Amino acid sequence: MVANIKDIPDIQGTPDTRRIAIDHVGIKDLRHPVTIRDRAGEALPTVAHATMTVHLPEHYKGTHMSRFVQILHEHTEPLSAATFGKMLDSMLERLESDAGRIVLKFPYFARKSAPVTGEQSLLDYEVTLCGEKRDGQRAFYIGTTVPVTSLCPCSKEIADYGAHNQRAHVTIYARVDGPIWIQDIIDLVEDAASCQLYGVLKRPDEKYVTERAYDNPKFVEDMIRDMASNLDAEDRIRAYTLECENFEAIHNHSAYAQIAKDKDVD
Amino acid sequence: MVANIKDIPDIQGTPDTRRIAIDHVGIKDLRHPVTIRDRAGEALPTVAHATMTVHLPEHYKGTHMSRFVQILHEHTEPLSAATFGKMLDSMLERLESDAGRIVLKFPYFARKSAPVTGEQSLLDYEVTLCGEKRDGQRAFYIGTTVPVTSLCPCSKEIADYGAHNQRAHVTIYARVDGPIWIQDIIDLVEDAASCQLYGVLKRPDEKYVTERAYDNPKFVEDMIRDMASNLDAEDRIRAYTLECENFEAIHNHSAYAQIAKDKDVD
Amino acid sequence: MVANIKDIPDIQGTPDTRRIAIDHVGIKDLRHPVTIRDRAGEALPTVAHATMTVHLPEHYKGTHMSRFVQILHEHTEPLSAATFGKMLDSMLERLESDAGRIVLKFPYFARKSAPVTGEQSLLDYEVTLCGEKRDGQRAFYIGTTVPVTSLCPCSKEIADYGAHNQRAHVTIYARVDGPIWIQDIIDLVEDAASCQLYGVLKRPDEKYVTERAYDNPKFVEDMIRDMASNLDAEDRIRAYTLECENFEAIHNHSAYAQIAKDKDVD
Amino acid sequence: MVANIKDIPDIQGTPDTRRIAIDHVGIKDLRHPVTIRDRAGEALPTVAHATMTVHLPEHYKGTHMSRFVQILHEHTEPLSAATFGKMLDSMLERLESDAGRIVLKFPYFARKSAPVTGEQSLLDYEVTLCGEKRDGQRAFYIGTTVPVTSLCPCSKEIADYGAHNQRAHVTIYARVDGPIWIQDIIDLVEDAASCQLYGVLKRPDEKYVTERAYDNPKFVEDMIRDMASNLDAEDRIRAYTLECENFEAIHNHSAYAQIAKDKDVD
Repeated sequence: MVANIKDIPDIQGTPDTRRIAIDHVGIKDLRHPVTIRDRAGEALPTVAHATMTVHLPEHYKGTHMSRFVQILHEHTEPLSAATFGKMLDSMLERLESDAGRIVLKFPYFARKSAPVTGEQSLLDYEVTLCGEKRDGQRAFYIGTTVPVTSLCPCSKEIADYGAHNQRAHVTIYARVDGPIWIQDIIDLVEDAASCQLYGVLKRPDEKYVTERAYDNPKFVEDMIRDMASNLDAEDRIRAYTLECENFEAIHNHSAYAQIAKDKDVD
Repeated sequence: MVANIKDIPDIQGTPDTRRIAIDHVGIKDLRHPVTIRDRAGEALPTVAHATMTVHLPEHYKGTHMSRFVQILHEHTEPLSAATFGKMLDSMLERLESDAGRIVLKFPYFARKSAPVTGEQSLLDYEVTLCGEKRDGQRAFYIGTTVPVTSLCPCSKEIADYGAHNQRAHVTIYARVDGPIWIQDIIDLVEDAASCQLYGVLKRPDEKYVTERAYDNPKFVEDMIRDMASNLDAEDRIRAYTLECENFEAIHNHSAYAQIAKDKDVD
Repeated sequence: MVANIKDIPDIQGTPDTRRIAIDHVGIKDLRHPVTIRDRAGEALPTVAHATMTVHLPEHYKGTHMSRFVQILHEHTEPLSAATFGKMLDSMLERLESDAGRIVLKFPYFARKSAPVTGEQSLLDYEVTLCGEKRDGQRAFYIGTTVPVTSLCPCSKEIADYGAHNQRAHVTIYARVDGPIWIQDIIDLVEDAASCQLYGVLKRPDEKYVTERAYDNPKFVEDMIRDMASNLDAEDRIRAYTLECENFEAIHNHSAYAQIAKDKDVD
Repeated sequence: MVANIKDIPDIQGTPDTRRIAIDHVGIKDLRHPVTIRDRAGEALPTVAHATMTVHLPEHYKGTHMSRFVQILHEHTEPLSAATFGKMLDSMLERLESDAGRIVLKFPYFARKSAPVTGEQSLLDYEVTLCGEKRDGQRAFYIGTTVPVTSLCPCSKEIADYGAHNQRAHVTIYARVDGPIWIQDIIDLVEDAASCQLYGVLKRPDEKYVTERAYDNPKFVEDMIRDMASNLDAEDRIRAYTLECENFEAIHNHSAYAQIAKDKDVD
């Protein structure tokens, strides 16, 4: 029976005797509005799913879950490399831990111009930002899923006319070093697809993207190699996992490829 | 404090005074292995998500949730129109209700032959079976999502070569009368697509499906009209909602169409 | 071979001879940033999935898909009953149709104060806005999924101590008439749960919500009846489908109930 | 123009000059019926999502996607450690690769007896089997998500009565060595939860699980430590990632913890 607020026991603060440290403990999938600073300098409002965790040494029984939520509420500035780093520091300070991780997943919108008419529209990309501190070192990761068109070279070659093509998802998750924008990474991917996607296409644009894809047939193997080649040439990307999934127009399953690389190790 | 099992009170059985009947009450999304009797007479094992509900008159406080689960466990026969009807009757009897509904959603697998080489493989379809009793009347519904290829007539016409195409999902949910197989409904849909899908295609098959889709360009409007026309001609289908969604290869959104019809009313 | 833009044929504009009208045709699941005007008068930025469709008479071959996307891009004002109606009108005018529907689904965030400490935080709700015009009549719908706590009266009664409780989702989809805010509907639901949820709870708040749920045990049947009773008393809600799903803490399936009502018909 | 089947070119077989090997290439998310051999010796039919990939050396342009599907169709024996290994070998042989991976995800059903009445019912678990060969070494992984009840010690301590509890998901992904059954791993997890789940509970059982959870309050930190302790003591588990996610009854987000360990390295 608890008489007043001060007497409410702090169970999480009591010592633990199992001698097992916890790598990550915190909150998962808290949905929250955030603002992203984009390459053009604009502040883009969006909605994130946040997962925030800290390392818990073996002698602590528990962490303080409500503090994670408070930190998310306090950081109202547009997210950039600088402000995201500040948020990571606040979290470690408030949770009294020397290691932790913040992961934010949100849709990002880029303004694109249709290839012939120049008609403007937005395209949405799923983006993940991850900031991590461990052993006194900070690491930042950017992930994004870029939807593109892939057109099958085999189908084009063997058929008298036409070629099956489809939407494909290219997912990159990269450890980055130095200032790099989400849009920089998207550009490296879109450049190497059979064709990129657009929100609005007028008829002359549709003619263009149809022919462009037909002129650039690529297997899932070709797409991933050309994209890996682009990522290899970009010094600010230090390590990456790159996946390409084609939602085959002729099957009910996907063609899939993956390449992982760590430039600082391999 | 409860002394023995007989003394445990039956809260659900007490009367209710709010005077509000509940249309459907029961269990939702219970995953359970089931067996389906298919058109070829074979018993196909699969896994269903079951939702089972009954009508609760205003003077009853609650239903008995565990009985729904028991009924599902007791019915081990392959599902057909006959056994599904028996299961519906058991449920109403055990739950002491005169109205109720069973909905089972599961993947269904059809054996298909590749169009040129005849190579056999399975294709998966999402299927919903629904049996309902109300006002002394029984009704049965079959739903299925059929994945197909759609090829854009506009893209074919305006481009010097090629045409964008993609996987599309056709979803039909039909009130049926008389014996009709899941496969019968799938056939009506696949027949009207730019091309149907297959699990395995060898190169001569891939040539065939590429050319077939190019020879049968269809807007989402064409697909849905041709499929509606097939459903209209099938007397065992008394009412339907038909949806077609093209996962556009050139956009990151879908083209979509819907037609609903009740032959016994319209 | 197409010489210039004017010569690109307009396939969608040609006549159709199948004599089948299409109830709804357009675009589905286009993700787009939107702003919502909330009850407090603030403009809340969020991200919507948009589905926009029009009726297509039997003599038209197709609709013009890119126009839907353009309309969404042009409407940049915060969404309210008034601006949403304007958007619906624009769509029908631009698509030259006399019937159509716009559906927007997005997360909505409400600022809440913890029940004892008053600590402020956001809670997220899934919301659907639907505007429809048909036969010269307009109809507006608001849907929302409200996460709440439910605590089982049977468990409380039969156990010597404790009672199983869990997160539950209450989903209401209502035809509304007259100005009503998303928050008004959320209030009607939260008021009738065992307890409502919060983003941040300090220890005194956690004590409060634990005891409050224990003091308000409700079966899924009780929750839905109490909520239906609240909806019945609200005149601006003309029709509704109300669902309650308890993600049972003691099972791997849900307890579920549904009530549907149309005050202008029943 | 292709005259006959033999003349259809084999594009995938041509050499590649980009000098980039592909870690994994193949098919993803092919849904297929499979049978699992369980601990009791029974063959359990279920439905898997299969992802099958091989390593592609830098000098090969592409792999042969249809062969993966054929291998899946050919292996009709109940899956056990032995038959799964055979399937992996067939894949590598047919795809002419010396490294590859098969991942199967499917619902697994265990027969459980209610704790007091002994009433039998099934409980479903999400399971992942992964077999991998690389550098002449084979490795096998078993993953499973076990749904359990967690009850909050803080809530129990500070409240005069009751305690919030909820469904939680414990996900383990383990590298195993030696014969170990899915059920063995499930047992290690369920043993350390506040309480385990059941498909059917009669009133005496519900009384039991309510009191058992109240008698075993565990933070997400306690659950993961007790489970890690169980996994540490099991020699056939050589490495693991263990995650615990509590779908908090009082919040709309999860409490989360993760521990990873490699006994052969750490």
